[in-house]
Amino acid sequence: MGPSAHIEDALRRAFVLAANGPARGANPQVGCVLLAADGTVLAEGWHRGAGTPHAEVDALSQLAPGAARGATAVVTLEPCNHHGRTGPCAEALIEAGIGRVVYSVDDPGEASSGGAARLRAAGIDVEGGLLRSEGEAVLGDWLPAARLGRPLVTVKWASSLDGRAAAADGSSQWITGPAARLDVHRRRAAADAIAVGTGTVLADDPSLTARDAAGGLLPSQPIPVVFGSRQTPADAALRRHPHAPLFADGRDLPAQLAELHGRGIRSLFVEGGPTLASAFIAAGLVDELLVYLAPLLLGGPKLALGELGIASIDEALRLELASVEQLGDDLLVVARPVKGH
Amino acid sequence: MGPSAHIEDALRRAFVLAANGPARGANPQVGCVLLAADGTVLAEGWHRGAGTPHAEVDALSQLAPGAARGATAVVTLEPCNHHGRTGPCAEALIEAGIGRVVYSVDDPGEASSGGAARLRAAGIDVEGGLLRSEGEAVLGDWLPAARLGRPLVTVKWASSLDGRAAAADGSSQWITGPAARLDVHRRRAAADAIAVGTGTVLADDPSLTARDAAGGLLPSQPIPVVFGSRQTPADAALRRHPHAPLFADGRDLPAQLAELHGRGIRSLFVEGGPTLASAFIAAGLVDELLVYLAPLLLGGPKLALGELGIASIDEALRLELASVEQLGDDLLVVARPVKGH
Repeated sequence: MGPSAHIEDALRRAFVLAANGPARGANPQVGCVLLAADGTVLAEGWHRGAGTPHAEVDALSQLAPGAARGATAVVTLEPCNHHGRTGPCAEALIEAGIGRVVYSVDDPGEASSGGAARLRAAGIDVEGGLLRSEGEAVLGDWLPAARLGRPLVTVKWASSLDGRAAAADGSSQWITGPAARLDVHRRRAAADAIAVGTGTVLADDPSLTARDAAGGLLPSQPIPVVFGSRQTPADAALRRHPHAPLFADGRDLPAQLAELHGRGIRSLFVEGGPTLASAFIAAGLVDELLVYLAPLLLGGPKLALGELGIASIDEALRLELASVEQLGDDLLVVARPVKGH
Repeated sequence: MGPSAHIEDALRRAFVLAANGPARGANPQVGCVLLAADGTVLAEGWHRGAGTPHAEVDALSQLAPGAARGATAVVTLEPCNHHGRTGPCAEALIEAGIGRVVYSVDDPGEASSGGAARLRAAGIDVEGGLLRSEGEAVLGDWLPAARLGRPLVTVKWASSLDGRAAAADGSSQWITGPAARLDVHRRRAAADAIAVGTGTVLADDPSLTARDAAGGLLPSQPIPVVFGSRQTPADAALRRHPHAPLFADGRDLPAQLAELHGRGIRSLFVEGGPTLASAFIAAGLVDELLVYLAPLLLGGPKLALGELGIASIDEALRLELASVEQLGDDLLVVARPVKGH
């Protein structure tokens, strides 16, 4: 039996409900609509963030005991099968006597998946994958980050057309123009966290805030993360960041990224410098590259990217261009590593 | 008295005549139309290349002695005032009794200019600058090269997005794809000469020919010019080039470019490698940059551009982007140095 129009309508309503929840953090935005056999809406629910009831439980809590018996639960994400801070939703749905579950996106979590199988084992009719691409869009970065078990990583650099990030004396203000710099701040604000190496902290003392053209703080700020073994000075500008900085020695990037993911960080904007950018690239931990190319030449030793451990052209890290756009006098090239390369 | 329509018509005819002459070499393409007082065409002429009569003399030679008396000479370029392998055209026009001279573009040559003044001193009515932009287009690279006293210089390189021309082991085939390589060959064929450093000759043994996609020679081939103090091996591929190679030690680039210009070379395509490209850029002898950017990362020490003698960001060589286009998977950025920077 395929889903009828009123099921799709309920799922679209659940997408809207999902957006009521917080867009950042460890848990996804999820919505749920409970339908009676005749298609009328019995209850609605959504998830309000880690530690609070999941969407299904939130919807069930609107009803008197027994009122959900035989109902259809329409959910944006596969009900979880995980004993976390809250009990598994699959169990809650079974206990409530739900007769049918329709959901959009499979739960990608290792610990939390298996909800559909658990429900089927309890005799409940389960269908997944309805309006899947809309469902994936609602989940945003949460979904690919959950699949990877780490934040999505964007590595950004600004360089001259000959690949230099600074002149020989280290001066780099400004290689790119105002439009490119504003674009960087906009993208910083969209990331959950921003990473910088200790070399850059000591050399440039960056604030790691996301600012508007007038220098004012944008409403959303990425959490600063400092990678490296050197000490960050007590008076470093990033210690005055709206979020307390996190520190990682950078010796085991995969484990440290997994730890950031565990803290609810879905996206990491790697701001620099060349050593940190090269380390992420060499470790294969990059999902997107942003290269701001300024129309100037510098020559000299200050490269935007250092050593990648590539010996021969056959080992080159191949990319696919996602977009090329002109920002003021500069170019922004967005590229992604070719999978399996 | 402004020029009448039949004068402009005659000049447009002279532009067409000019194109009959050779498009390469030390001398420009020039056309001339002699008009009677009533506007009828008395004779036409054009220049067939160095050592042959200039366009004005070619046109006068069609007429019986005295038949050009009082006529109007309409010429695409200011008549020369220079005793070269042929006598000055200004003198020939004066001797023929021409009453009026109208031309399009001022002669930029140091030795050959002054024709208009000489004609006026002889009592002839002279007007220059008619349809100047069309006249400049007809002259092509000859005109800016004559103004600079050297060939127009295009520096080309192909690099990864991080500015490397090769992997650590020197391998570089292929950084860019077939569409970009074909574009390079098309541009080589359009240049009068192609320059390479001895380092690249010894490392890569390039043929320096312009070839089609199947590897066949294109109809027009640039003259190979080898810069550097090291010896080019007797069996080097470039010694089998359709044109005999020229050699320059590269110690005085301005003088050596002036010498190439004296040989009739209007445009030089600097193919590489990094040392030669950097030397041309550092010397301020570049009119156009072609940067083929491949969507890959290499890291490592093999940079597309070396040292430019730039210490601080304020000394950066600023460029203006002329175009950005995608060629297959690669990007071609065409840029020009900002004048006075």
